[in-house]
Order: sequence, then C-alpha cells, then structure tokens
Amino acid sequence: MASPQTKRQKSSKDVPYELIYWPGLPGRGEHIRLALEEAGAEYSDTAFSGDSAVQTVLGYISDTNLGDALNPPVLAPPILKHGELIINQTPNILLYLGQRLGLVGDKADEDAVFKVNELTLSALDGLSNEPHDCHHPIATGSYYEDQMDEAKKKSSDYIKNRLPKFLGYFERVLKGEASKSEWLYGSQLTYADLVLFQCVDGVKHAFPKAVARMGKSGDYENVFKLYRAVQERPNIKAYLASERRQKYGMGIYRHYPELDEE
Amino acid sequence: MASPQTKRQKSSKDVPYELIYWPGLPGRGEHIRLALEEAGAEYSDTAFSGDSAVQTVLGYISDTNLGDALNPPVLAPPILKHGELIINQTPNILLYLGQRLGLVGDKADEDAVFKVNELTLSALDGLSNEPHDCHHPIATGSYYEDQMDEAKKKSSDYIKNRLPKFLGYFERVLKGEASKSEWLYGSQLTYADLVLFQCVDGVKHAFPKAVARMGKSGDYENVFKLYRAVQERPNIKAYLASERRQKYGMGIYRHYPELDEE
Repeated sequence: MASPQTKRQKSSKDVPYELIYWPGLPGRGEHIRLALEEAGAEYSDTAFSGDSAVQTVLGYISDTNLGDALNPPVLAPPILKHGELIINQTPNILLYLGQRLGLVGDKADEDAVFKVNELTLSALDGLSNEPHDCHHPIATGSYYEDQMDEAKKKSSDYIKNRLPKFLGYFERVLKGEASKSEWLYGSQLTYADLVLFQCVDGVKHAFPKAVARMGKSGDYENVFKLYRAVQERPNIKAYLASERRQKYGMGIYRHYPELDEE
Repeated sequence: MASPQTKRQKSSKDVPYELIYWPGLPGRGEHIRLALEEAGAEYSDTAFSGDSAVQTVLGYISDTNLGDALNPPVLAPPILKHGELIINQTPNILLYLGQRLGLVGDKADEDAVFKVNELTLSALDGLSNEPHDCHHPIATGSYYEDQMDEAKKKSSDYIKNRLPKFLGYFERVLKGEASKSEWLYGSQLTYADLVLFQCVDGVKHAFPKAVARMGKSGDYENVFKLYRAVQERPNIKAYLASERRQKYGMGIYRHYPELDEE
C-alpha cells in the first residue's frame, strides 16, 4: 500500500514538466526538449521566460544552494522540475522522462532501460562532450581564442579518430540484431534515437565539411538514415520548424571554420 | 503474468555477475568492483583471468562485434555480463546493479534512483573523466609525452578551478537536507558514495599535493569524512586490503609529478 507521502508525491507530479536551461542556444537542454516534443508532453522552458531566464538558472546552480529535504542541490543545467522533484544531468533527466513518456521501447522488455541508457551515454560522450572539448580542450572557463592552437590539434584528432569511431559504433548498433528496425534498439523509436539525431545535427553544424564527407562515404549509411527518419517524425518536424527550436550559437556545438577539415 | 520469455530471462539471471575489464589497473572497472564488494555479491572478473584477459576484452569491443539478438554491441569496458544480459557504460552498469544489490537507498523512495544516478554522473564527469583528460587533453590515442605541454595547462586549470568546483559541489550535497546522514543521499549508503570514494581516491593518487592541501583546508570536510567512512565499511576494508584491489598504473588516474601543484 502506498504511504501517504508516496500518494502526495504522486499527485504532485500531475503537473507539466518544467525545463530549466540557459536561453539562446540549444545546448544540452535540446535533448530534453526533443523527448518532450516527440511525446507531445506539456512543459515550460525557462529559455523562453524572457529577462528572468538567466537569473532563474543561476539561482539553481548558486554556490549557496543546498537543495531541499527531497532533492540534493543540482550542479548544472539542464534541470528538470516535476512537482516536488528537481533533478539534473542530461542522461538522468532522459532516464526519468523516458519511462514516463513511453520512449524506452517495449514495456515488456525489463532490460530495455539499460540498453537505451547505455546508447544515450555513449552518444553524449563521443558526440556531445568531446565536440565541446574540441573548442575548449584546456579550460572550460577561458575563451576559445586563448586555447585555439590546442583546439585545432584536438579537433584534428577528433575528426580523424574519434568521430569515425563513434559514428562507426552506432552504425554497428544499427546493423546488429538487437536493432529490429531503423531504430537503435528494438522495433520502436526510443529516446536514444532522439539523442543520436541531435548529436549528428550538432556535429554537422560544428564540422560541416568533415561530416558531409562522412555522409557521402556510405560508411555510416544507417546512422544518416536514422537522422533523416527522426527529422520526419510528425511532432519533431513541427518542432524543428517552430521558433522553439533554437539556433546554434556559443554552446556545445560551435562552428569555427578553422577547426573543420579543409 | 510473466511471459515464458520473461521467466526464462529471470532464471538466466540466477547466476554470478561477470565483470569484463582490462587487467592491471583499477580504472573505471573499480566502480563496479566496489559496488559488488560492498554488497558481498558473487562475481568473476576478467582482470584475474590471466593471459586471456586482454583477448576477452578485445573480443567484446571488436569492430566486427554486432552484439546479439538481445544486446546491442558494447563500445568499451567496463562491461557487465549477467546471464544473457550484456551492458556497458559505468553509470549504466551501476544503475543495473544498484537496484539489485540494494545500493540505492530506501526502497519506498521511488525517485531515489534518479538522485543516486545524478550524483554518480556528476562525480564521474568532474572527478574521473576530467582527471583523465588532464593527462590526455588532445588525443586519447596518443602518448602522454606528445601532449605534455597541453597536459600541464589542463592540469593547472583543473587544480585551480575544476577540482574545487566538484569537491565544493559534493560538500554542498552533504550539507544539504536531502543528505540525512554522513552519506550523499538519504540515510543509507548508496553506490554514489562508493563512486565518490573511488573518485577522491583517484585524484589523491593523481594530484597528491593539491588534494592534501584541499584536505587540510577544511573546505571539503564532509567529503573527506565520507571518504574515510567508506574505507571503514567492513566489506570495503577487507577488499582494499586484498589482492583484488589493484594498484594505480597507466589508467584514468596517473601520477605525473609535473602535473601536480608545487
């Protein structure tokens, strides 16, 4: 039997999701938006709350924030508030939402969550965190211009070794038997597919020449097919055409022509 | 009612856990070992399988491995095999084991898993992945000696800005109301505490002077108290004194005196 506290918590979650993220760039918040948009979920987004957006985010990640009785303090956005729950870390928010939004595949497959989570973590590692480090290999808190030489070396290695490694990995996932469709795992779209879509979109923006060459090579045919299939999902298509989809800027994925291949 | 397939899968999991990891260094596999050891779980470890260990790992991560009908191919070790299940990604393996081994706190707290997972992800980001990048800021596949100048710059920024940021974050977590004990979340030890222990142990090894200074400062008093409390857990204490606990070497956490502070 549910305790009174559990009941209260459950009813407190019968409210829209609240995404707390920096305004003005897609960033890591975009992974959360795509899951919510695909599922047609009701949510608010601080990125569109006008002048107060930055202050709201800063309040959550302040050095004096100790969280509350239910929630440890969060480290960084994206942050999800849902009723009394406040959590952070992109793959963790997706884990929470994925189960609620029906984006982890077949409900009878009790291990699906661990497959979808591992694919998500690997996509974020190699196709989101590493691309960020390409323009900030030395110090996250310093300007790109102050680490440009190192950024060129890092990006050169990324394009030569790391990007093919990760695209090749996901190509193998799609060719494998556990992918029973055009999607990464099982026969339904999961949030890992949405994450891979956004990662490919991001590296296309950051390294257009390199990714165009890789697209033409045919070596990652199934990855690019998945990318296009996500674009054509009705809810995603409408979202991408809307003003809610933000333009790339000074976030994770940055286009510096000198970091792309010749 | 459980389908025949679900029943078969469940019974196939009534077997010991199998950890597949490189021999000769604690690495990311250590987080998995600590969870298994704390819980007193039965497991095998390829790191102790002699000459075949490296070949076993290479087989799993081969470019020709497409996984099987149940499991996508894995990208990198640590890998956990449990019956027919094969998964990778350190925080994902911990998510799987944590629930089974009773290391996510109070069972009545349905959101505990998302708190423990977010703390784990943040510890691994800032206190495991970033320390790795300190000695390999440009190219994971190249020698340290070929990126030593950049490693010095990255380590200097890490010690000055990033390490205090993450230790400070976990100090706030421990001071917050959601930590109802000496542990990060709730009133019981969770696997996030074991991860933080290993992360602190690793940065102590990599940057002994910097971490000794931070330990003496008193600014992270609760973090170091947690570190010592984990060391005193009976199962952990016995494990750390055993030959199963491996010595640091050429893994994530490396001690290069020139990267530490003066």
